[in-house]
Amino acid sequence: MSYTTDEKYILRCFELAKKAIGKTSPNPYVGAVLVKDDKIIGEGFHQKSGLAHAEVEAFSHSQTSNAGATLYCNLEPCCHTNKKTPPCTQRIIQEGVSRVVVSNLDPNPEVAGKGLEQLKQAGIEVVSGVLESQGAALNEVFFTHITKKRPFIHLKWAQTLDGKIATTSFQSKWITQEKARFHVHQERNLYDAILIGAHTANQDNPRLTIRLDQETCKKRIILSPSGKLDSSLSVFTDSFKAQTLVITAKNSQFCHDGETLKLELKDKFFDLNDLLKALYSKGIYSLYVEGGSTVINSFLSQYLYDRLSVYIAPKLLGKGLQSVHQMHFDSMEQSIVLKEGIWTQFGDDILFESGKNECLQD
Amino acid sequence: MSYTTDEKYILRCFELAKKAIGKTSPNPYVGAVLVKDDKIIGEGFHQKSGLAHAEVEAFSHSQTSNAGATLYCNLEPCCHTNKKTPPCTQRIIQEGVSRVVVSNLDPNPEVAGKGLEQLKQAGIEVVSGVLESQGAALNEVFFTHITKKRPFIHLKWAQTLDGKIATTSFQSKWITQEKARFHVHQERNLYDAILIGAHTANQDNPRLTIRLDQETCKKRIILSPSGKLDSSLSVFTDSFKAQTLVITAKNSQFCHDGETLKLELKDKFFDLNDLLKALYSKGIYSLYVEGGSTVINSFLSQYLYDRLSVYIAPKLLGKGLQSVHQMHFDSMEQSIVLKEGIWTQFGDDILFESGKNECLQD
Repeated sequence: MSYTTDEKYILRCFELAKKAIGKTSPNPYVGAVLVKDDKIIGEGFHQKSGLAHAEVEAFSHSQTSNAGATLYCNLEPCCHTNKKTPPCTQRIIQEGVSRVVVSNLDPNPEVAGKGLEQLKQAGIEVVSGVLESQGAALNEVFFTHITKKRPFIHLKWAQTLDGKIATTSFQSKWITQEKARFHVHQERNLYDAILIGAHTANQDNPRLTIRLDQETCKKRIILSPSGKLDSSLSVFTDSFKAQTLVITAKNSQFCHDGETLKLELKDKFFDLNDLLKALYSKGIYSLYVEGGSTVINSFLSQYLYDRLSVYIAPKLLGKGLQSVHQMHFDSMEQSIVLKEGIWTQFGDDILFESGKNECLQD
Repeated sequence: MSYTTDEKYILRCFELAKKAIGKTSPNPYVGAVLVKDDKIIGEGFHQKSGLAHAEVEAFSHSQTSNAGATLYCNLEPCCHTNKKTPPCTQRIIQEGVSRVVVSNLDPNPEVAGKGLEQLKQAGIEVVSGVLESQGAALNEVFFTHITKKRPFIHLKWAQTLDGKIATTSFQSKWITQEKARFHVHQERNLYDAILIGAHTANQDNPRLTIRLDQETCKKRIILSPSGKLDSSLSVFTDSFKAQTLVITAKNSQFCHDGETLKLELKDKFFDLNDLLKALYSKGIYSLYVEGGSTVINSFLSQYLYDRLSVYIAPKLLGKGLQSVHQMHFDSMEQSIVLKEGIWTQFGDDILFESGKNECLQD
């Protein structure tokens, strides 16, 4: 594959942006490259919410005058002022940059083309849409939570070849092998919170931490309408217990050292839209939903997911808990077709990954 | 990967042998190469039962004296006389071949090393075991029916990602896309017979023919204890109807233009070992078992399979007919682990293929 000069520098922006994977929420992944006479004179990336934007990082690493330079940035520079850092557009104009190339417009309605417009007004040449779909994929979480005003939802489960996620006695350790399970830890790292149901919590007593180089922890959300949760579970007793958020019914008596959020029940379960709204307002912009069966099927049957991952182990279980069982379609044509799926092998296991069915409306 | 000289010529034997794929039953796939002064002076393969063996074909294509030549052959040359063609060992000795290299010994107890022994006695250098596992894979059907004295069994089904093979109303067209379905036709071509249950026959009315360049047909076996089969089905009315074999109960009144075999029932179904014995004695040495659910689960739960193929489509069906549902295991550790599996993508679908679980006894 051959790339144009603009594409090459935008690819470098992606590369830089990815250095902050899992660290920028609620902000997007952004990399910036300053180029003069086909040489990079400065580059940077946004490291964390509250810290400098990628463009500013690139300027601060430049050892020469930026006048006449081209600024590459995978996302449109910001122009709004009601936030932690000053607008990048002013700085770009001040530095005398003559050309700005971006991959995506910022979907934030406070920017959404206005940033590029300001630059254009200042006489700067602007180009947008370079490797646009790759840029959108990199920032799918950001684009989703900004436009849908709810957390990005990644549903994940592991099953046997015949579609079972546990034995009839709910035993599920282990379906997949180590390589697949390690990948799950990498995935957990991408989201603000991991979400599971009470039954899975009580049954499996999972740690829900991220065990890569060292053990870290994002927010751990347990959905428990009844509040019947074993207080000796890891999530309530380990060193990350403050990171555990229990969602329970208004009348539940459950309490623990972490946070508790009480929601109305509808038909004995939470209304998922209420739940998502509550999480969003608490600053949780992305969810990795790991089960069990009730939780997964609730999200699935309401088409509430933006990404779906199914790890399949080459095992047959026969009788057992089915991964998907709640939806009902009269004909094969009506079944949910998971578009643009990608199959990736992890040792003996395989991962099927897909974005949301394109046909589905939100 | 670098190969020795012997391996290179054995690979050529495999290549030649494969020219007869699907055509040699009950005989194995065999290719032979005659080499003198590192040049191939003759080669051939076994085309069909009753026709010349590969070694004889190689000799007949040699334009020079074979004295002092090396004969490569993926299977040990035959030495027994109670068959359609004369023993190859005599011919090899007569031709003055000085060295014979094979991949596998012939598992047929009438040969089983005796062929090489005869050659050795005649002063010929013999080498065996060259690319042995590749040779065994090529002839897995032959090796299995010779040693197990029952047909080789290949179980196959297509399912949605969540393990369903049909809707609750038994509708299953289509789960996979064309590329996977074309592969099924190539697979059908490898076996003596395709086997399905009566419910699948009545429900889907499948043709069970092989539609590659042109439409051909192997034996089509329908298991129907009750004999309740719709006489207007394709398998009873098309131009291949003589190829249809119905297995039914002793007291069944079913009749059709093809063949019918009556077997005792045990617990309302056939005893699979009786069935396999009956098919074997009728000269059916390999089966491609295509469903439906009852048939697949009967074979599976009795561990009666030598190869297993599962085509998975990236679709979710929810409620529906589960692919595997009859077996029951208390823990995940006890589930059937399908060893040495291979995942192959066909368009959007994937095929999981595995030999039999190594741990299982016959």
